[in-house]
Amino acid sequence: MRDIEGGITAPQGFVANGVHCGIKRGKKDLALVATDRPCTAVGVFTTNQAAAACVRISRSHLANETARAILVNSGNANCCTGERGYRDAMRLVEVTAEAFGCRPVDVLQASTGPIGKYLPMDAIAAAVPGLVAGASEAGARAAAEAILTTDTRTKEFACRLDVGGQVVTIGAMAKGAGMIEPNLRTMLAFITTDAAVDHDFMAHSLREAAAATFNRITIDGDQSTNDMVLALANGRAGNERINADAGGSTFAAALTKVCRALAKMIVKDGEGATKFLEIIVRAATTDAEAETAARAIANSNLFKCAMHGGSPNWGRVMAALGSTDVTFDVETVDIAFDDVVVVRAGAPTRYEPKRLKEVVAQDEIQLTVSLNQGAGRGVIWTCDLSQAYVNINQ
Amino acid sequence: MRDIEGGITAPQGFVANGVHCGIKRGKKDLALVATDRPCTAVGVFTTNQAAAACVRISRSHLANETARAILVNSGNANCCTGERGYRDAMRLVEVTAEAFGCRPVDVLQASTGPIGKYLPMDAIAAAVPGLVAGASEAGARAAAEAILTTDTRTKEFACRLDVGGQVVTIGAMAKGAGMIEPNLRTMLAFITTDAAVDHDFMAHSLREAAAATFNRITIDGDQSTNDMVLALANGRAGNERINADAGGSTFAAALTKVCRALAKMIVKDGEGATKFLEIIVRAATTDAEAETAARAIANSNLFKCAMHGGSPNWGRVMAALGSTDVTFDVETVDIAFDDVVVVRAGAPTRYEPKRLKEVVAQDEIQLTVSLNQGAGRGVIWTCDLSQAYVNINQ
Repeated sequence: MRDIEGGITAPQGFVANGVHCGIKRGKKDLALVATDRPCTAVGVFTTNQAAAACVRISRSHLANETARAILVNSGNANCCTGERGYRDAMRLVEVTAEAFGCRPVDVLQASTGPIGKYLPMDAIAAAVPGLVAGASEAGARAAAEAILTTDTRTKEFACRLDVGGQVVTIGAMAKGAGMIEPNLRTMLAFITTDAAVDHDFMAHSLREAAAATFNRITIDGDQSTNDMVLALANGRAGNERINADAGGSTFAAALTKVCRALAKMIVKDGEGATKFLEIIVRAATTDAEAETAARAIANSNLFKCAMHGGSPNWGRVMAALGSTDVTFDVETVDIAFDDVVVVRAGAPTRYEPKRLKEVVAQDEIQLTVSLNQGAGRGVIWTCDLSQAYVNINQ
Repeated sequence: MRDIEGGITAPQGFVANGVHCGIKRGKKDLALVATDRPCTAVGVFTTNQAAAACVRISRSHLANETARAILVNSGNANCCTGERGYRDAMRLVEVTAEAFGCRPVDVLQASTGPIGKYLPMDAIAAAVPGLVAGASEAGARAAAEAILTTDTRTKEFACRLDVGGQVVTIGAMAKGAGMIEPNLRTMLAFITTDAAVDHDFMAHSLREAAAATFNRITIDGDQSTNDMVLALANGRAGNERINADAGGSTFAAALTKVCRALAKMIVKDGEGATKFLEIIVRAATTDAEAETAARAIANSNLFKCAMHGGSPNWGRVMAALGSTDVTFDVETVDIAFDDVVVVRAGAPTRYEPKRLKEVVAQDEIQLTVSLNQGAGRGVIWTCDLSQAYVNINQ
């Protein structure tokens, strides 16, 4: 498996495009990803109860396990817009299907932006034919730009791997700035591959990959109404269809790698983020308890502020741990920033202040908490909380 | 029941004092509240698993249902300080008992400040005799100052009520800046009364009052290791002992009023707070679901940032609701800022923008969310999230 240049159109047979249709001012706001034949298609979606129209439509259109195209708009979530919002999203799907020459059920749709506003339908519908006509292999970057909201940069990834003697390619793009947050941002990720992949195997692999990557990130603890990860496999590589028994582990590992790369890009470009924080909780009673503990630390505003200021405030780590119902005993907890152990058996160590200061001044910091209870392990990726986060969201 | 001037020494027979002993630089950091006879004493404590030494000691000293004095230090939480920290806290209790002329078990102790640092024992122990000797009815304000950390002002309250023909007084002081946060702050509240009150009734009343007030506030979603609410009743008023059947409802209502007043003061003086937000969720399936929903909204950084900026961003309210497992249907939700209904049956209304702008520019904003599912109701008080919060905590 090796990383390659490119994004969503790196696999054979995929085209993309991104244009400005008028939802946002002067920025690209409408993207298309499409392929020339029916794809095996799977998705994972937000569990938010206030899920947007696009989530309901895309989930329903995946019931037949295939798709041809994905239409994405930024600048408007089309969420909490009732029946009218649902009809609007369906009309966009129909317009795209007509322009592309496929059935509406083969079109998936994603939206991101503010909640509670109706889509400017005429502007979008008028732009779709040009968007479709202009789609090409060269359009990956334009599409990656058109799905952004408060992101400061595009997020693309591609890699190539050998499955049963056949080279296959995976491409991807995403936008942040968090899995877990609503309104102006939403996490979207789109993955393409020219591999032939069994539908159920790919659906399972994507769920597993998302659980290990996108579900491990948090920017601010808020959950979006529009989160969506879609994966399309068009089979153009001509490989023997991948399933659990044929090339499955290699493909699943590659899918997880792609998702991990995108997830980390999202956290690093989180709103106001200046630091990437990896929170590892180990030696917990169970993996689930380790994750709960890691998440509590990652969602502590006080811990995130301390990391922003480069202050190795482990008391906030301990307090966040203590606020959970995770099994532990303060007297057996070890805490380390990178390789500097600051707490051993619940009490402060005599660490070297200069070395610790260097560690917490880095752009990427690893916090390891050992509960010394069992073999459970959990990792969460997050970012610091800065004044810029408030500036962006006030 | 009427509010009166004064604080912790407003009831008969209570004295207090606050001095600078050297934990903090140039600020009062050691407080005493005491009375001339054994009191009926009750407390509620943080549920944080990493509870500080003072929490363990005060809880244990309340086992005999009486107390004479409370020693409080600010500037150091004496938490995660192991056996040494526990011995330090016990020594402070003993020094206070000796200076005051009572048994160590009659002294309660509270600490607030950074976690993981050892107390400067010599400085504190040396200051205790003077602290005790100088305690008087006039010392309430000094005590209220000495317990503060990042608070910007003292928090005192007193009221007088008639119980069975006898006038009794309740006094109180507190510090914030949040029930739910660790490290530099911690919520502490101390309540005194000259009423004679049955121990079990007072313990029950304090738990109920705390549940309805202190447990309804959140600054930043973080929980302290040192939170403590203590109440002492010395019986000096000479009333017939209050219990559930004799004056109980009047007294319990007064206790709740006192706790509510302190809780609101704490939120209004939350770190970086510029606005007081009352989140009311009504017509939920149950009270518990209403509280869960209100808490999710109150702990949404995005909602808090929006309120800081005076932006009536109800999409963030809906997303926070949707992220919970509370029973609701987007299509039946109503949302109002004060009296301006912005969402009816899940869809935006045609409100008057000018009026809404005025409402969200206020110092105090009431958000009401009606789920239209049942009769459940819950209220949470919180504050906005500002750049100043990050400045204080980085």
